[in-house]
Amino acid sequence: MGLIVQKFGGSSVKDTERIFNVADIVTSTYAKGNDVVVVVSAQGDVTDDLIAKAKEVNEKASRREMDMLLSSGEQVSASLLAMAIEKLGYPVVSLLGWQAGFLTTSDYSNARIKKVMPERIRKELDKRNIVIVAGFQGVNRFNDITTIGRGGSDTSAVAIAAVMHADLCQIYTDVEGVFTADPRKIPGAKKLDVISYDEMLELATLGAQVLHNRSVEMAKKYNIELEVLSSLTRKPGTIVKEETKMEKMLISGVAKDDHIARISIVGVPDKPGFAFKLFSKLSNKNVNVDIILQSIGRNGTKDISFTIAEDNLDVALEVIENYVSNVGASTVLHDENVSKVSIVGAGMESHPGVASEMFEALYDSNVNIQMISTSEIKISVLINRADADKAVRAIHDKFFGE
Amino acid sequence: MGLIVQKFGGSSVKDTERIFNVADIVTSTYAKGNDVVVVVSAQGDVTDDLIAKAKEVNEKASRREMDMLLSSGEQVSASLLAMAIEKLGYPVVSLLGWQAGFLTTSDYSNARIKKVMPERIRKELDKRNIVIVAGFQGVNRFNDITTIGRGGSDTSAVAIAAVMHADLCQIYTDVEGVFTADPRKIPGAKKLDVISYDEMLELATLGAQVLHNRSVEMAKKYNIELEVLSSLTRKPGTIVKEETKMEKMLISGVAKDDHIARISIVGVPDKPGFAFKLFSKLSNKNVNVDIILQSIGRNGTKDISFTIAEDNLDVALEVIENYVSNVGASTVLHDENVSKVSIVGAGMESHPGVASEMFEALYDSNVNIQMISTSEIKISVLINRADADKAVRAIHDKFFGE
Repeated sequence: MGLIVQKFGGSSVKDTERIFNVADIVTSTYAKGNDVVVVVSAQGDVTDDLIAKAKEVNEKASRREMDMLLSSGEQVSASLLAMAIEKLGYPVVSLLGWQAGFLTTSDYSNARIKKVMPERIRKELDKRNIVIVAGFQGVNRFNDITTIGRGGSDTSAVAIAAVMHADLCQIYTDVEGVFTADPRKIPGAKKLDVISYDEMLELATLGAQVLHNRSVEMAKKYNIELEVLSSLTRKPGTIVKEETKMEKMLISGVAKDDHIARISIVGVPDKPGFAFKLFSKLSNKNVNVDIILQSIGRNGTKDISFTIAEDNLDVALEVIENYVSNVGASTVLHDENVSKVSIVGAGMESHPGVASEMFEALYDSNVNIQMISTSEIKISVLINRADADKAVRAIHDKFFGE
Repeated sequence: MGLIVQKFGGSSVKDTERIFNVADIVTSTYAKGNDVVVVVSAQGDVTDDLIAKAKEVNEKASRREMDMLLSSGEQVSASLLAMAIEKLGYPVVSLLGWQAGFLTTSDYSNARIKKVMPERIRKELDKRNIVIVAGFQGVNRFNDITTIGRGGSDTSAVAIAAVMHADLCQIYTDVEGVFTADPRKIPGAKKLDVISYDEMLELATLGAQVLHNRSVEMAKKYNIELEVLSSLTRKPGTIVKEETKMEKMLISGVAKDDHIARISIVGVPDKPGFAFKLFSKLSNKNVNVDIILQSIGRNGTKDISFTIAEDNLDVALEVIENYVSNVGASTVLHDENVSKVSIVGAGMESHPGVASEMFEALYDSNVNIQMISTSEIKISVLINRADADKAVRAIHDKFFGE
């Protein structure tokens, strides 16, 4: 018995049947004597439908009015879920972001949570109400409605768990937990029982898309135990928590990211400051650079290659062309047919053989490595996109095969 | 130049085309140098769709959660209208009921406005913003969302006009104003240029359904000039204001109400107190009694007949059967095939011939009068429902014919 925060995504509340499924999970948790706070996203495609409606009226609608519009989606799902719980005979109350005390910055459509003032939630829990909170939304200091970005409901849930010192924060999705690889692609992929915050962060960044990074970062900061689990199968999911010695797995997962592109600048004058200036110009345009490779120079020039998110390619090329024509580098090349495949594991710090095992798996399946990047708990390689699925399978077999 | 409040109903904002039509009206008003506050209802059938969604989940959902759900409808229309106005290049901000300072009672689904605190609206107008307010909604003292009943957006608009001392409150609908009779039924029906609050109240009560009574009562109380007009034709509508001697029309309109029923109690013991007790019992059940007719007694008994709203018939009959069996009245009859036809006019006070002209018109068209009721500015008759349209035409011809 304790305080449990449960978050349900849009697919978990997409229709009446699913809403009652969620109501059943929530009331079962409550019936065991727990205090329960539930965070919901908008139903199914509601957010996308609202965006389409807005675009029909004004392609360049202000972000303030977009937030006013989109926040109605969670209002609908929160009240419908409350009605379902009423139907099951339990005491319940739904609250919007501003009612639940979510104070955010004024960056409409991508606001950060500054503070959660949980007085109202606490009061409702004290009355033994189940509390439903509309996720993804808050108000700024002008009392205007803000939204905290896509996937923000995860963050809403973790923020409540943090400020109220919840015993557990459950993130219900349509997968059963965190897997050693994408289970839709790799038949032998195994569900992890436990994973550390850092490993989860690397996996989220690498495109595993189970949890949003912001929510994991916040959970780590406030040491909130997360559980990722399915709202349909009702099996235990994956616990995300602080790593302990005992639990350190050599490798916890293999991830793939197809949404990247590689840029190469050939014939850069071999003078100090080129890379620094280039990357700061890219950063000014919100382009994040990932893996960087710089060749030893020949004839007073060098080559520099790096990866970025595929979405940023046009912006990045524009910045680079401008800059390069000023400094006299010869050629800018780019390649969208690349993927990044990574292994993550808190245990690899103390096991130097992991990288060579990964490279061996790739060599055995005839996959060429273009670039390599490593951190303390991650090894990433850039390869041809056509080889990506094969590479993931080979690596997964190597570490998790029978 | 002044402060103008404009209210647009659901059909006026039902799709993108209509939204831009409204945006055009609003920005034209603003471009003339006026401060403009706009109150909107939910788009077209949105409220009905949300109610259907709720019923699918829980037929007996709490009214608190219903209000949480339904208030999202105006949130969507308010933000979409703001986006359309942005598109036209004008400064605009949308506000929800709680942001616009609407404090209401806690009677969810039928709350009364206790107070409008216009500080935020004033601040936005001072910044030269057009202000869009979501109608129909407010918050109670617990900061929970309430709705103020169907048609409440009219009342929202008048409340803002009252508290901010607006120069004019325009109620845009899909009709061009207030007519001498229902223009869909009576070809010669004429639009009125001006009508007094009292006449409008009688017409609203009598089923003209152009403006909601609560809004007219509030406009009268705070002396707010209303204009009822069409959002499509852009012609001047009907002004509703305090009557002045000059403007007194003999008759301002003919109205019909089909949604009534007549009850007769035959053989009531001729003792004091019967009617008083009966009507107080009905009043306790929220049954409003309209026209009452009591016969002179025969053999120590009398007959009593009265009309009520058709919807209340079952409740009323139950109350009456119980009461009558206690006091020993003989028979209770009821008739749903009745209509009430009325003429309204502030001028009739000083023209005693009006009633006989009306009765003459009915006699000439062979319509039998069952009951008669009069007030200072109204004469109503109860007739067979089958005769009702014929009766309205005959009376309208008599007073407004060429």
